[in-house]
Amino acid sequence: MRGVRILIIGFGNVGQAFYELLNTKRDLLSFDITIGEIIDRSRGYIINPGPDILKDVAKGRLIGRKVDIDEIPRLITESNADIVCEFTDLNVKSRGEPAFTYLSTAIRSGKHVITTNKGPIAFHYDELMELSRKYNRLVRFKGTVMAGTPSFNILKLLPGAHVEYFMGILNGTTNFILSRMYEEGLSFNEALKLAQQLGYAEADPSLDIDSIDAALKVVILSRVIGWGHRFENVEVEGIRDIDIRRYGDKVIKLVAYADKGKAYVKPTPLDKNDVLAHVSRNLNALRFKLDTLSELLIIGPGAGKFETAQAVLTDLVDIVNSIRLS
Amino acid sequence: MRGVRILIIGFGNVGQAFYELLNTKRDLLSFDITIGEIIDRSRGYIINPGPDILKDVAKGRLIGRKVDIDEIPRLITESNADIVCEFTDLNVKSRGEPAFTYLSTAIRSGKHVITTNKGPIAFHYDELMELSRKYNRLVRFKGTVMAGTPSFNILKLLPGAHVEYFMGILNGTTNFILSRMYEEGLSFNEALKLAQQLGYAEADPSLDIDSIDAALKVVILSRVIGWGHRFENVEVEGIRDIDIRRYGDKVIKLVAYADKGKAYVKPTPLDKNDVLAHVSRNLNALRFKLDTLSELLIIGPGAGKFETAQAVLTDLVDIVNSIRLS
Repeated sequence: MRGVRILIIGFGNVGQAFYELLNTKRDLLSFDITIGEIIDRSRGYIINPGPDILKDVAKGRLIGRKVDIDEIPRLITESNADIVCEFTDLNVKSRGEPAFTYLSTAIRSGKHVITTNKGPIAFHYDELMELSRKYNRLVRFKGTVMAGTPSFNILKLLPGAHVEYFMGILNGTTNFILSRMYEEGLSFNEALKLAQQLGYAEADPSLDIDSIDAALKVVILSRVIGWGHRFENVEVEGIRDIDIRRYGDKVIKLVAYADKGKAYVKPTPLDKNDVLAHVSRNLNALRFKLDTLSELLIIGPGAGKFETAQAVLTDLVDIVNSIRLS
Repeated sequence: MRGVRILIIGFGNVGQAFYELLNTKRDLLSFDITIGEIIDRSRGYIINPGPDILKDVAKGRLIGRKVDIDEIPRLITESNADIVCEFTDLNVKSRGEPAFTYLSTAIRSGKHVITTNKGPIAFHYDELMELSRKYNRLVRFKGTVMAGTPSFNILKLLPGAHVEYFMGILNGTTNFILSRMYEEGLSFNEALKLAQQLGYAEADPSLDIDSIDAALKVVILSRVIGWGHRFENVEVEGIRDIDIRRYGDKVIKLVAYADKGKAYVKPTPLDKNDVLAHVSRNLNALRFKLDTLSELLIIGPGAGKFETAQAVLTDLVDIVNSIRLS
């Protein structure tokens, strides 16, 4: 097999961390890989990036030819890449655009795709799976739920197992806020401010604290499992101004839950003998209730640029193994 | 591909549960599978077992022709099975025999093998891997560490990740004993008796409470990761007559640990803010320290007949997918 060629769209934290991780781990991979093109709104259209690309990017200026957003689909179509890695930012209002356009354009022009963007997967799951079948190209999105920490992909290790429900802590920022409120007696606003200072929360924290981010992950997990939940049907309650003292001896966590019939994200009091109550810091956790294994709980980082880059590497190896063996 | 034929050696709890699970999940598998032969010391040599086999077995009598132990290797060699599933009991004194002989005979005669028996893997890892390469046959043993709960196989979802160390709770019986001592104030002997009454501990509990079982799992995990630890070099301390009150505010768990340089299983005091301290009942837990993901913790059942049968199904699907694609 000739080397695998990659086109990266969006060269922010995740894209750069992936570039760096890939170079660090290159010798561990059993295939040859080239990042042939990078498209980024502020860095431009970069062809055959050299070894100094990360240094150049750190300088913050345009590197390649300036790119107009409208021409990105054409650049994707004309690219000779095997795999398009889509790392643009989440846009909930636009229901995952323009990322969905990038991904669908890539598939239609014969590329496999990897994305770390929850938007296109949560809002366009069925369309992407339909395109995947029609064009016989793979769609991978491990990084959308719990970064590189195994989440839905752990089910591949459990063939035959039936998921009765899942519940978990799918947003690290709110878990950090709640943990600090318990451990240090901070108020909600104090803990939020601390999360912002440490870079865990955005200046506008609403995606996290209003449970939008976790709800998108609930949708993605549900669709992978085979349930039909849509974003609009996920019952959502945030933690804005929450008062943890109201819940006495129980520990409040922002719990994401779904079974075949219902899906929600809401602050939920947990018994102290439930391990989930002890998942602290900005860690994520996901419990599957399975017929064969009763319960399975995974705890790990849910964000971070290298943690997300691991997810992309996982998807990349999965695609390459599938291509080679088909 | 023609249907996959299986020979089962050892038709106790795990073998029967696997037979039942396979029949329940048959429609979910994308390949045809037949259990063509069963060899069991008390049930005999059963060819083409019919749908009533589990009922017949429950009656406790010889079903097939009586088998002499010495002829089992010949029966394995002469079998036309594609995969041999080895479910005999652990024998530490014999360093994994006769299971190792069964497995090596199977590989030499062209069969892939699956085992749930820690002995042959912990004591003969290198030889089995060498045979696997030489005869181009696969060796799978997921069930030896944490039953069907993903343990070492989760690393397949994390290509490129480097394991710096692992630590975990790899023996459910001792975790049950320690948990009951904390939760109900039982003495060690009272908790052990309860574990025996509930069927979690054997009449002779030494494999569990002297940390032999967990040490074998440490060896298996280490070898899969690529470290050279041998059973004889694992530092082992049991929990016999342990007094948990000596450790004040910390929680004592029987912790299994290894990195490249050392390996041990010993009672270890854990801070209450460590999630591992809250893994209760007979659950198992395994934490990997990875370069890309900092920490990853998996918690789930580590024993049980259906939980172990899930591991066999996992191994079976893995082998069949590899056969089909090669």
